[in-house]
Amino acid sequence: MGSENREYEIQRRRVEVQVPPPKPFSSFLKSTLQETFFPDDPFKQLKNQSVRKKIMLGFQFFVPILEWAPRYTFEFFKADFISGITIASLAVPQGISYAGLAKLPPVIGLYSSFVPPLIYAMLGSSRDMAVGTVAVPSLLIASMLGKKVNPHQNAKLYVELVFAATFFSGVFQASLGLLRLGFIVDFLSHATIVGFMSGAATVVCLQQLKGILGLLQFTGEADLVNVMKSVFRQIHLWRWESGVLGCCFLLFLFTTRYFSKKKPKFFWISALAPLTSVILGSLLVYLTNAENHGVEIIGHLKKGLNPPSLLELEASFGSTYLSTAIKTGIITGIIALAEGIAVGRSFAVFKSYHIDGNKEMVAIGMMNIAGSCTSCYLTTGAFSRTAVNFNAGCKTAVSNIVMATAVMITLLFLTPLFYYTPIVVLSAIIMAAMISLIDYEAAIHLWSVDKFDFVVCMSAYIGVVFHSVETGLIIAVAISLLRILMFVARPKTSVMGSVSSSATYRSIEQYPDANLVPGVLILHINGPIYFANASYLRERILRWIDEEEDKLKCSAKNDLQYVILDMSAVGNIDTSGISMLEELKKNIDRKCIKLVLANPGGELMKKLDKSKFIDKIGHEWIYLTVGEAVDACNFMLHTCAAKTKADELESEAADNKV
Amino acid sequence: MGSENREYEIQRRRVEVQVPPPKPFSSFLKSTLQETFFPDDPFKQLKNQSVRKKIMLGFQFFVPILEWAPRYTFEFFKADFISGITIASLAVPQGISYAGLAKLPPVIGLYSSFVPPLIYAMLGSSRDMAVGTVAVPSLLIASMLGKKVNPHQNAKLYVELVFAATFFSGVFQASLGLLRLGFIVDFLSHATIVGFMSGAATVVCLQQLKGILGLLQFTGEADLVNVMKSVFRQIHLWRWESGVLGCCFLLFLFTTRYFSKKKPKFFWISALAPLTSVILGSLLVYLTNAENHGVEIIGHLKKGLNPPSLLELEASFGSTYLSTAIKTGIITGIIALAEGIAVGRSFAVFKSYHIDGNKEMVAIGMMNIAGSCTSCYLTTGAFSRTAVNFNAGCKTAVSNIVMATAVMITLLFLTPLFYYTPIVVLSAIIMAAMISLIDYEAAIHLWSVDKFDFVVCMSAYIGVVFHSVETGLIIAVAISLLRILMFVARPKTSVMGSVSSSATYRSIEQYPDANLVPGVLILHINGPIYFANASYLRERILRWIDEEEDKLKCSAKNDLQYVILDMSAVGNIDTSGISMLEELKKNIDRKCIKLVLANPGGELMKKLDKSKFIDKIGHEWIYLTVGEAVDACNFMLHTCAAKTKADELESEAADNKV
Repeated sequence: MGSENREYEIQRRRVEVQVPPPKPFSSFLKSTLQETFFPDDPFKQLKNQSVRKKIMLGFQFFVPILEWAPRYTFEFFKADFISGITIASLAVPQGISYAGLAKLPPVIGLYSSFVPPLIYAMLGSSRDMAVGTVAVPSLLIASMLGKKVNPHQNAKLYVELVFAATFFSGVFQASLGLLRLGFIVDFLSHATIVGFMSGAATVVCLQQLKGILGLLQFTGEADLVNVMKSVFRQIHLWRWESGVLGCCFLLFLFTTRYFSKKKPKFFWISALAPLTSVILGSLLVYLTNAENHGVEIIGHLKKGLNPPSLLELEASFGSTYLSTAIKTGIITGIIALAEGIAVGRSFAVFKSYHIDGNKEMVAIGMMNIAGSCTSCYLTTGAFSRTAVNFNAGCKTAVSNIVMATAVMITLLFLTPLFYYTPIVVLSAIIMAAMISLIDYEAAIHLWSVDKFDFVVCMSAYIGVVFHSVETGLIIAVAISLLRILMFVARPKTSVMGSVSSSATYRSIEQYPDANLVPGVLILHINGPIYFANASYLRERILRWIDEEEDKLKCSAKNDLQYVILDMSAVGNIDTSGISMLEELKKNIDRKCIKLVLANPGGELMKKLDKSKFIDKIGHEWIYLTVGEAVDACNFMLHTCAAKTKADELESEAADNKV
Repeated sequence: MGSENREYEIQRRRVEVQVPPPKPFSSFLKSTLQETFFPDDPFKQLKNQSVRKKIMLGFQFFVPILEWAPRYTFEFFKADFISGITIASLAVPQGISYAGLAKLPPVIGLYSSFVPPLIYAMLGSSRDMAVGTVAVPSLLIASMLGKKVNPHQNAKLYVELVFAATFFSGVFQASLGLLRLGFIVDFLSHATIVGFMSGAATVVCLQQLKGILGLLQFTGEADLVNVMKSVFRQIHLWRWESGVLGCCFLLFLFTTRYFSKKKPKFFWISALAPLTSVILGSLLVYLTNAENHGVEIIGHLKKGLNPPSLLELEASFGSTYLSTAIKTGIITGIIALAEGIAVGRSFAVFKSYHIDGNKEMVAIGMMNIAGSCTSCYLTTGAFSRTAVNFNAGCKTAVSNIVMATAVMITLLFLTPLFYYTPIVVLSAIIMAAMISLIDYEAAIHLWSVDKFDFVVCMSAYIGVVFHSVETGLIIAVAISLLRILMFVARPKTSVMGSVSSSATYRSIEQYPDANLVPGVLILHINGPIYFANASYLRERILRWIDEEEDKLKCSAKNDLQYVILDMSAVGNIDTSGISMLEELKKNIDRKCIKLVLANPGGELMKKLDKSKFIDKIGHEWIYLTVGEAVDACNFMLHTCAAKTKADELESEAADNKV
């Protein structure tokens, strides 16, 4: 009677595992595509609006300035003006310096701080991002294009190719955004970026030894070994004047940064330090005639605004190096995007507004396309400049317009003042900016939290420092992808037991006190069942069963009678996976063990149903929870045991009779 | 008092979510490597044995014949003898035919059915597999090598390269097995193989039109368009004699197959049909002198056993086409492995014994290395022959030895008998074998069960039929990998509700009757949180929250106060994922919503703990089950509501007093 009650109890409590309601294929396809390309539902606000309103909102969607300009106030302008001037004081020396890093004439760095910020102010949705040239893509351009065309011997062709690369970067970036493929940038993981940026910063710092030591000749390669060789081979050419000047300015820049870090409200001290260095350095050279004593200077800078560069672009399209330019454009474009999007997003989180990654890509892409037609090279959201902009209290993208205006004034009137600026100061500015990018603390954090991420990070770093920027990037991305494949190819399986007295079952690895259920093996599968892991899972599950049987044999306990597979974490299955389950069922049927499934999800149930696996296993052997499955198994075990006992007694009685 | 009781109840019941006990890094690394490379624990039986026993078992492990030979009986031999003779009758005509497919002299096909089966019998662990040449790799060899070297104009070099490709196939296969990298074969999913095999079979059938129509010239390409062009351009050269003969034999072969399928115990009728066709065809030609009337014949076949081919191998190593041979070897090697392993495993499941995939790879690899030194080309486990072997009742790999002996006798004495064998009969044999490989039923099954697998299958088919065998394979593998990446890049999130009255929470997509909990949003995340999906998940979770808030606003219900993330199916997390959770927490904290986690697994807890995220969220906000999390949220909601109400009453009372 007791057992009947129990059966009744189990049946009463039982909720059947459901196959989700059927959905037509078209709506399934639509929802899949929407989840893939529009996970953030960007056109949400257009719903249920009149056509006119829709068009207006659509315009505002693509040109955000239309949305916020009407609400712009004088208060905002005051804040934006101050921050705009502050970032301009950073943009001018950095622009000149990074152009040098890209092996371009310094004035192109200034051009690049004029047109792109104006475009971004119209199209961008970040309120804090300060746009300009950045170090790592500059270095990448020099290293990728420099391999094919010597920037000194063939300067005209080199500049043409740089514009072409910028153009293709822009086209690539904008199309990623328009096609909603922004998630490609996500494949550059945090660990990859930490390692890659640190590596690139190391390489850039090493290259600055050229400027600091006043060397005239230098290797075109960017890796540690070649750079150090080049430096030490020319030991007799080192200029102490240049070296002393460089070290002084480095010291100055570090001290101001340290001070500003200690007292954040004096952020402007470190923000103005580069411009101060340039002014001091230029004055020093002018007064001491140091240019004749081994201190190299910038020299003549062309006055005037950006000349159009359509002719150069056109010339490059006919060049034999066009494919190199396209490759460079795509790789630098994606790196620039990763930096720009990360910068925009970090500051948006601070101020709690939303940034649409795909829209940002379109904005960054458009500004690079426009830039490539007006003698600018690759620009994106720059981290250091954006941080200064944020600290200076900017309110909107108008600070970019203010910066562009300041750069315009510089271009129109102030370029002659840079004649005496020593190269060594620019090197010191770059070095000071780069050293803060070498993020060893993040690497230590990666090691302590996730060893695999540390491996990714270090391989990016080593690849960049010892071979080339592209190699490092490709290795790190490949290892990251391998991790995803390995997650799927080797899903974790673990034995489960009941946690304390409750009917909750958990892995005994995590809960070592969990109680195993005698005669029942409960296995948790932690990942989708796909072709890549079907064989593995079959082998592994059979091995668990063998091991359990061996253990039971040794302890002379009951036989293993049920295997419950907890499918809670099995997100999906494909036809190879279903064949595997069928094969597994055949295998363990032969051992007279019953296969039981617990909590298969909707996608799983749909496929198991369509492939008739549910009929094969029996719908009554699929349970909503592991607890229910265990109850059912226990019930069967006890009724069977009782029945066997009754049979034994009966036969004994019969024997006695005889 | 009631609420206090309830709190007590919740606390009493509560089991803390545990961080799994720490494990030293070395043991973690060891277990990871073991799971990756030795999931089936192949050396299990060597444990706890004496050194001598270990060595003996080790030998038996690598040379399975040592293990079963001592137990071999005469009963076994009788069975093996019958099945060996049966498969030999299939092997001889198929060997000659497939050599033609690979554009090799027919005798090499016979050689390949002599040495490799002997090697396999010693090293292989399958009891049913019949070894020999197979169609698809033969076709692949011809299409990949034939592109570089014309097999008719430059026959000697071509044969050398085929031996080299076979050698590299063997080396590649054996090293995959030795390095325990057999899982690479798993990346050829069931769907890929169905599409690829069907496509290859189609292509092979089309190519047989050459033999059937008695054409002398034919295109070297293997795609549909080129083959059909070649056939119809030569319409004036079609030979009706050949065509009629071909159709008759095709009809004969199909009829016998149909009959054997209907009555499985007459399997030998279809097994003997190819040899019968060859004999009938040869007799017919001999008697009618059809060789002078447009029916091409094999002609002279060299008598004698396999000559050594070390000199040819050596010559090929110096050839400029060595890299092509290596590429061909690797691609055909992996295809041959996939077929061989699948065949071995399927029949092992029937007879319920275990096959170690990696060990089989070593066996197949060794037999190809040995084969390449004795004038054989690529061999593997052939499906049709193995099925015949199984039906004929083979007991052990001795049936392979019997087959090899029969082939040896053929080579020594019977080759002259094949002089008059018409090519058209060989074409008919190939066509009949291939048409059964075009598995349209499997494709329909894929469509009904898993649309994505169907896409993979069709792209493999179309790629093979309209471009080339390699293209089809590469496209299918790329799409399959994309699916894995998309699973990780776009994990499914769904809202959960309680199922019936129990405290079990499940996705409302699967259980549309599930009850939502007011004021609490429960989200299920179905996949690991990795760099590739961190941005997506942040956007998607925030969108769920926004939508829920909008819904609540419309219905003027309580505000959303808690978001419970069910982490049961989140198998792993990396540092990008942890940053995402931190960012998400900041975002929803700002909305005054509390983030609660339910059931994070061991790996997750370890990393959340190390990255201090647990401290940030508070250990008390991590629950063992969704049910407990909901109870806690509900409890807080009610106490707060009660408190607010009490406050209101109090202030009202105070107002009243005033």
